[in-house]
Amino acid sequence: MKKLGKQTIKFDTPPSILQTASIVGPKEANGPLAKYFDQCLDDEFWDEKTWEKAESKIIKETVNTVISKSGIPFEKIDYCFAGDLLNQCISSSFGLRELNIPFFGVFGACSTFVESLCLASVFAESCANYILCATSSHFCSAEKQFRFPLELGNQRPQSAQWTVTGAGSAIVAKCGNGPYITHITPGKIVDMGIKDANSMGAAMAPAALDTLITHFKDTGRKPSYYDVIVTGDLGYVGKEILTELAKSEGYDIKANYDDCGVLIFDKNTQDTHSGGSGCACCGSVFSGYFFKQLQDKKIKKMLLIATGALTNATTTQQGESIPGIAHAVSIEI
Amino acid sequence: MKKLGKQTIKFDTPPSILQTASIVGPKEANGPLAKYFDQCLDDEFWDEKTWEKAESKIIKETVNTVISKSGIPFEKIDYCFAGDLLNQCISSSFGLRELNIPFFGVFGACSTFVESLCLASVFAESCANYILCATSSHFCSAEKQFRFPLELGNQRPQSAQWTVTGAGSAIVAKCGNGPYITHITPGKIVDMGIKDANSMGAAMAPAALDTLITHFKDTGRKPSYYDVIVTGDLGYVGKEILTELAKSEGYDIKANYDDCGVLIFDKNTQDTHSGGSGCACCGSVFSGYFFKQLQDKKIKKMLLIATGALTNATTTQQGESIPGIAHAVSIEI
Repeated sequence: MKKLGKQTIKFDTPPSILQTASIVGPKEANGPLAKYFDQCLDDEFWDEKTWEKAESKIIKETVNTVISKSGIPFEKIDYCFAGDLLNQCISSSFGLRELNIPFFGVFGACSTFVESLCLASVFAESCANYILCATSSHFCSAEKQFRFPLELGNQRPQSAQWTVTGAGSAIVAKCGNGPYITHITPGKIVDMGIKDANSMGAAMAPAALDTLITHFKDTGRKPSYYDVIVTGDLGYVGKEILTELAKSEGYDIKANYDDCGVLIFDKNTQDTHSGGSGCACCGSVFSGYFFKQLQDKKIKKMLLIATGALTNATTTQQGESIPGIAHAVSIEI
Repeated sequence: MKKLGKQTIKFDTPPSILQTASIVGPKEANGPLAKYFDQCLDDEFWDEKTWEKAESKIIKETVNTVISKSGIPFEKIDYCFAGDLLNQCISSSFGLRELNIPFFGVFGACSTFVESLCLASVFAESCANYILCATSSHFCSAEKQFRFPLELGNQRPQSAQWTVTGAGSAIVAKCGNGPYITHITPGKIVDMGIKDANSMGAAMAPAALDTLITHFKDTGRKPSYYDVIVTGDLGYVGKEILTELAKSEGYDIKANYDDCGVLIFDKNTQDTHSGGSGCACCGSVFSGYFFKQLQDKKIKKMLLIATGALTNATTTQQGESIPGIAHAVSIEI
């Protein structure tokens, strides 16, 4: 592999995404992508006593599903990269504690899934055969932790997003028949001073722009190179901002750009305001919907950019702004 | 590089640790290692309004110090790996948001520093020239977040440890004159059912044992190969447990084993019970003390194993046990 330009890494023998899996909650099961997920849950608890334990179960079973679908024995998986939104990433740690696979915890907020794919790709080309990536989020555990007790029934502004309940998981392999990860563009932290914790799309859009433009400059590619450019969870508000910002920088992405947070819920019937968010938004929509589009050759070249808001409840209370980050992977068949 | 045995990676052209830096708080400044740190603070706030902002400033200035000491221009640093103990790793994200360096957030609890060194080493041998690693912790922000309000003046059991206020940072380089990272052994999550959040050393010792033995088996080395084997923050309780467990498995490490949490405070005068803990315990003691020992050739072969407790306040309240993890790097001159 070699470094291209400022931030991008190009692989000489691009790693394959061997298999993916996704499990989602009941609201996602009522959305337009339901048929693409491996499993849709009836409720937010899945027979567990707490939302945190339910989220751990979701990531655990998603990982079991991807390993089972891949046919790779557990003991052949070299390393695991995983993380989530809960304090100290407990969903991943508790959900995956019985895996018995060397474990790298990662934290990129909602960019975690693509951050894991980036790291897994570097390991695949250099020192490992099979690498597991996983992430999760849960509407109830996230609301409780970041915003208000659900019991309050708080109103949410139209710019707010709905944390996806679910998990996404992928196995990246040194050898395979694709889809291939040909490039990664890890992002920088970008903070434009947005302080509204109910407007995460606006806070993260500048980071997405930075990574998007850097990717194009580093690779010499243009937006039209890709069949689709997909962000993780900018939602309706952030998607519009990114489209406009990119255009003002000379990159017209309107024709082939979409966002997982826009795709996962139905705007007219599901009342999720600016759309979906959370680590599982990008994780489940890629693992469920886009991976199948790539397998079926309906999409041949994809730029996946997951965005994260690197904030917490304390920083918001202390009057801080919301730093964003975005990591990109170029996936081609 | 190539994989050795189950978990270890051996580097063909071992990356160098080019430079390190450390900044610590006032209690650490009264400890036996004070003279080795780059800067010792007079108080826990460092002119900031909150402990969280102070912790962000500490990691920021530690990173500025290591970059300045290395003589490498900021723009030549390819990637940064950083993380900390605060919810959503805000110390790293806020402290390093102006760095303008592609950023991978990592979370390994108190194992974060060595997790970052592991990832940085793989990047150094495969695709990057200079990689920054950083971590921090803060006694006050950690107590507030994980245990009780400091204002309570709570009593602490003798098995409890004292979170180090400080930060450690290192620059790993593809080329250099050492100390070299020759091997890494990333660890698995190990949960032996310990539930006492005031006995983290006991909870983490089995993970340290697993990584220690795996490292020896993968490399064919014995404890006597190393001048020192050093764990991150097992403290007095965990150090004794690890020594006994290792002996029962046929590895006698008593002669050359020590722990950063034992070294950083004076047991007789500083009232820190089982010793130091926190990401900055391993981070600052390695970056301050051990790196100089390696530079001065007083130590030639070192196995550094940082341990982390992958838990949070919610899981403890929900009756969960404490999963541990330990990552190891072999450092030689």
